[in-house]
Amino acid sequence: MAAGKAVEPGLARALFAPRAVALVGASGDAAKNTARPQRYLRKHGFTGKIFPVNPSRKEIFSEPCFASVRDIPEAVDHALIMVQDVEAALEDCAKRGIPLASVYSDGFADAGPRGAERQACLVTRARALGVRLLGPNSMGVIDIPGRLALTVNAVVEMDALPAGGTSLVSQSGTMLGTLLSRGAARGLGFAKLVSVGNEADLGVGELVELLADDADTRVILLFLETVRDAPRLAAAARRAHAAGKPVVAYKLGRSTAGEALARSHTGALAGSDRALDAYFRDCGIVRVDMLETLLEIAPLLLGRKPLDLKRKPRVAVVTTTGGGAATVVDRLGLSGIETVSPDGESPIVDLTMAATPEKYRKVLEELLDWQGCDAVLAAVGSSAQFHPEFAVEPILGAKKTAKPLAAFFTPHAERSLALLAERGIAGFRTPEACADAFAAYFAWRTPRVLSKVHPVKPNADAFQLLASLGIPVVEQQIARAPDFTHSIPYPVAVKLIGVEHKTEVGGVALNVDAKAFPVLKGESLLVQRMVKGLAEAIVGYRNDPVVGPIVLVGAGGTLAELYQDVALELAPVSEDEAMAMIERVKGLAVLRGYRNLPRGDVQALAKAVSAFSRLCSEETIQEAEINPLIVGASGVVAVDALLVTKE
Amino acid sequence: MAAGKAVEPGLARALFAPRAVALVGASGDAAKNTARPQRYLRKHGFTGKIFPVNPSRKEIFSEPCFASVRDIPEAVDHALIMVQDVEAALEDCAKRGIPLASVYSDGFADAGPRGAERQACLVTRARALGVRLLGPNSMGVIDIPGRLALTVNAVVEMDALPAGGTSLVSQSGTMLGTLLSRGAARGLGFAKLVSVGNEADLGVGELVELLADDADTRVILLFLETVRDAPRLAAAARRAHAAGKPVVAYKLGRSTAGEALARSHTGALAGSDRALDAYFRDCGIVRVDMLETLLEIAPLLLGRKPLDLKRKPRVAVVTTTGGGAATVVDRLGLSGIETVSPDGESPIVDLTMAATPEKYRKVLEELLDWQGCDAVLAAVGSSAQFHPEFAVEPILGAKKTAKPLAAFFTPHAERSLALLAERGIAGFRTPEACADAFAAYFAWRTPRVLSKVHPVKPNADAFQLLASLGIPVVEQQIARAPDFTHSIPYPVAVKLIGVEHKTEVGGVALNVDAKAFPVLKGESLLVQRMVKGLAEAIVGYRNDPVVGPIVLVGAGGTLAELYQDVALELAPVSEDEAMAMIERVKGLAVLRGYRNLPRGDVQALAKAVSAFSRLCSEETIQEAEINPLIVGASGVVAVDALLVTKE
Repeated sequence: MAAGKAVEPGLARALFAPRAVALVGASGDAAKNTARPQRYLRKHGFTGKIFPVNPSRKEIFSEPCFASVRDIPEAVDHALIMVQDVEAALEDCAKRGIPLASVYSDGFADAGPRGAERQACLVTRARALGVRLLGPNSMGVIDIPGRLALTVNAVVEMDALPAGGTSLVSQSGTMLGTLLSRGAARGLGFAKLVSVGNEADLGVGELVELLADDADTRVILLFLETVRDAPRLAAAARRAHAAGKPVVAYKLGRSTAGEALARSHTGALAGSDRALDAYFRDCGIVRVDMLETLLEIAPLLLGRKPLDLKRKPRVAVVTTTGGGAATVVDRLGLSGIETVSPDGESPIVDLTMAATPEKYRKVLEELLDWQGCDAVLAAVGSSAQFHPEFAVEPILGAKKTAKPLAAFFTPHAERSLALLAERGIAGFRTPEACADAFAAYFAWRTPRVLSKVHPVKPNADAFQLLASLGIPVVEQQIARAPDFTHSIPYPVAVKLIGVEHKTEVGGVALNVDAKAFPVLKGESLLVQRMVKGLAEAIVGYRNDPVVGPIVLVGAGGTLAELYQDVALELAPVSEDEAMAMIERVKGLAVLRGYRNLPRGDVQALAKAVSAFSRLCSEETIQEAEINPLIVGASGVVAVDALLVTKE
Repeated sequence: MAAGKAVEPGLARALFAPRAVALVGASGDAAKNTARPQRYLRKHGFTGKIFPVNPSRKEIFSEPCFASVRDIPEAVDHALIMVQDVEAALEDCAKRGIPLASVYSDGFADAGPRGAERQACLVTRARALGVRLLGPNSMGVIDIPGRLALTVNAVVEMDALPAGGTSLVSQSGTMLGTLLSRGAARGLGFAKLVSVGNEADLGVGELVELLADDADTRVILLFLETVRDAPRLAAAARRAHAAGKPVVAYKLGRSTAGEALARSHTGALAGSDRALDAYFRDCGIVRVDMLETLLEIAPLLLGRKPLDLKRKPRVAVVTTTGGGAATVVDRLGLSGIETVSPDGESPIVDLTMAATPEKYRKVLEELLDWQGCDAVLAAVGSSAQFHPEFAVEPILGAKKTAKPLAAFFTPHAERSLALLAERGIAGFRTPEACADAFAAYFAWRTPRVLSKVHPVKPNADAFQLLASLGIPVVEQQIARAPDFTHSIPYPVAVKLIGVEHKTEVGGVALNVDAKAFPVLKGESLLVQRMVKGLAEAIVGYRNDPVVGPIVLVGAGGTLAELYQDVALELAPVSEDEAMAMIERVKGLAVLRGYRNLPRGDVQALAKAVSAFSRLCSEETIQEAEINPLIVGASGVVAVDALLVTKE
């Protein structure tokens, strides 16, 4: 079933089910973080052996302590390194044949360029020694069904860890604790939780591969600050998809400050958020906007596949309290989701307070069978707080269908939320996270298969490159001093050559007639035929440092920038995919018959976008742009273009 | 201190502190909603007298029951009517001299046009009888410090109602319960809570007036589905502002479905959301986006005034866990809030885990004194869950200053939230509501004083009206068949007369030269001088059915519509206010020197917007629009205009 790279045999066992662990730098001072893992492992019933390592102690918390990893008398599967001298500890692990070390210690890529160098050396050495690394700067690993709490995160101070089918891979150790803590408070349990730290060796992608193959894991959550290995994560997400396991991501760094913080925190680029959005969509990763959604969405996705809807999604909202449903109906509407009812009139199905649980369940089941909606949401009022069993009984009792059933509770209703969680039904605490989850679910796409493309012939000249891609270029000639002869009919456009942002520096003259020519000062000038179309578009290409090749299309002129009115996809895209992108650009509505305006040749535009996206086949191209591409009633023509290559 | 209308003497007493209440239609069947008020009043220690009224019982829950209100032997301040025959009960109340009746019964404006008629009759009769009404379709009134739980809302099943300085006026009875329930779970208490139902008589505005004068109320929350009496609420909000009491609104009906639901639920228009936004801002009402923010924001606003910032707001975020702070920093950034630190580099102040509580408090106080930020936010990690006293001690201990101090807790941390609530410090459960609250706080404005304007002379012709307002109109003449003579120099613009959406139906020809003239078919044509400016703007006016006169300015052409790129204010606006509106329109950046484009005469545009807003002085004008108004390097000129008057 699993596609892609084979997972290293034994890695999952060492990581999640070690028969013995070494705690390098374990402390006997209970107040210290480094004393925690030993205590937590015992507290949560770890069934393997524990070997604390600390040269200054004979015993820690009444267990024998070893001066060095080398002194441990038995085989160890997993070492947790908490000392400053990580390098020496690694050597010791290798000597004892320990296949995996989790490194809590920081001072690596998280600590500037010097730390990054130190990290590179550490990884090189670990590879040479055959030791896999989690971290550095990792808070460790938790396997709840496996009773492994190999972590310094104080979240496992709680008495019973909640077990469930959701696993988490987190680039933030703190947020691992946050999600586990919030889940526990409402019965949302976990299988495995991994804090990946700096991802020097084991990265998010490889962990998703492990979880795709993990029997206890049914949904995979990602808390991300960056994406360090986009191709590997993409492959892993496809593998999880093939295994029927939805992958959900919450990603920081959407704002400038968030981006700066993520960068300083991880030593890696946060990446362009719009490019990441396209990336997640392409890989079949569900992206949520709100933190709480990451937790609440898991049951909604459990066992489901992307709907790949081509129309507006529809949710039937059923309630006994119209006032209580209104907040969530309003919010669903703001998220572009239609709320529908079989009567076709009201946006909700209001059963009123008088409805019996039997009637309620019957209506829920009718809606689950109804072809007119894609999901069913029950909005429950105060009974969810005071009579939780009664209030959620119809929801728990409704038959399971392929269509999702979820609930939103208006009051404080932890018991009702827990009852739903127990039965694997999605329950939402706020109208906003509820709408966010549904929007994310409906936006979820089957991983896209990127088509193979004809390779592009490299060309230093942007216009020649366009021509080789089959994108029409405006008729043009270079006119040189002193006589500036050319054969383009007047009026013409005249442009300076080799100047960026020409318009802004007065390097363009339009509608120039023979009398005024050559207008601009320069040894050689570009002379173009004046073309007038119905609209201007911008078509862009970039080899993004985080997600790789992307293509974009937007409304031309100042619109793309002023309104951020562009659609973006990973390259390459087919003509059909390009057409779908064009549909998403508001400013290009003027080409689609908006306000009775004459229709433009959108097909030719789509063809150009698709052709442009083939640039991804040529590694030396960093960035390219056609701005503007004039779209006429029949055909398109490129009037200006830019090309940035790397040596 | 209190401005505006005088509040009716005795009304507050009857509503919130009745010496005796009559429960008309009280039930002895504990399973019925109508049995609740008697039980709830007793449960929460009501100190006045309770008179159940029900002709079929002698006793209810061991208290004497009366066949009719007329039989009650003592003076009653407040009757709660729960019977179908509200009209008869009202007559009885009047006969006994009861000054106020709350009506739980529905079947009025909430039930279609017939119900609306019934409601109108009820109000007319109540006024004639001198009885004030709360409702119909009201869930009643709760006064927590006053021990009055005169409600059918099951939320007061809880054993102890949380007292606090926040009062709530809600158009949804369910949501009253929601907010009280959620507040109670985390120590956020209330003073008074009123479910206004259909607002047949006592409306949100009058209740805000009462609360502005109420000694127990320090912050006023509004849960709104509509605004039924905009001027009264505006006056009440100004009165609350004068009394130093912030007013916060959460308003439904922002989406189409939400609007439809609010309308069907209340029998009233939800109103244009953008117009309401301008309205709230003008009245000095803080508007929140998320439901939970309505609850969480109260301590943030307590005792504060609007900052009226003219620059980007700045928050200093202090934390011991960079990873935990990142979610909220990212979200603040998305809300347009800068996160700053005294070192000028990092977006946060990271004290690291090693910080002592003393050090933490010292840093908080330094930031509270620091001129570089407008508010301080502490982001607290797992210690908030496991060592709540320790984790929040520095926050509780920090000296109080005029600058807000708030906290965001990453884990599930109810105890920490309650500790903060006890001390009146804002605590947030999600990064999203935290950012929403700060954004709402910073967007909060001192109520605007609408200037007096020179009245406009009514005029049936749009262009003449513009001229009378001093807005330049393009040079134009009407050319009539058969010879269509005119003296406008060619090329000209030719337009059909008396046709709407001219461009869409081919009723406009531009750049027409003498040879081609008259181009269009018609008995008389409008001939205009061709004018070319730097950009087109749209200026609009509407007498909004919910909030009253509004003026808008947007980018011209298709931009205003495609991108919803308009700024809107209540009319009238001064030139300075118009200038601030223009600043908010993205598409008009092209007039502000964007990309080195030539600057347009923004001052002339502001002058035109301000002049146009004077239309509010003429009641017969329903709607007016200049589209486009051409903005040149010097001056503006109206090229097309529309005017809709009422009879």
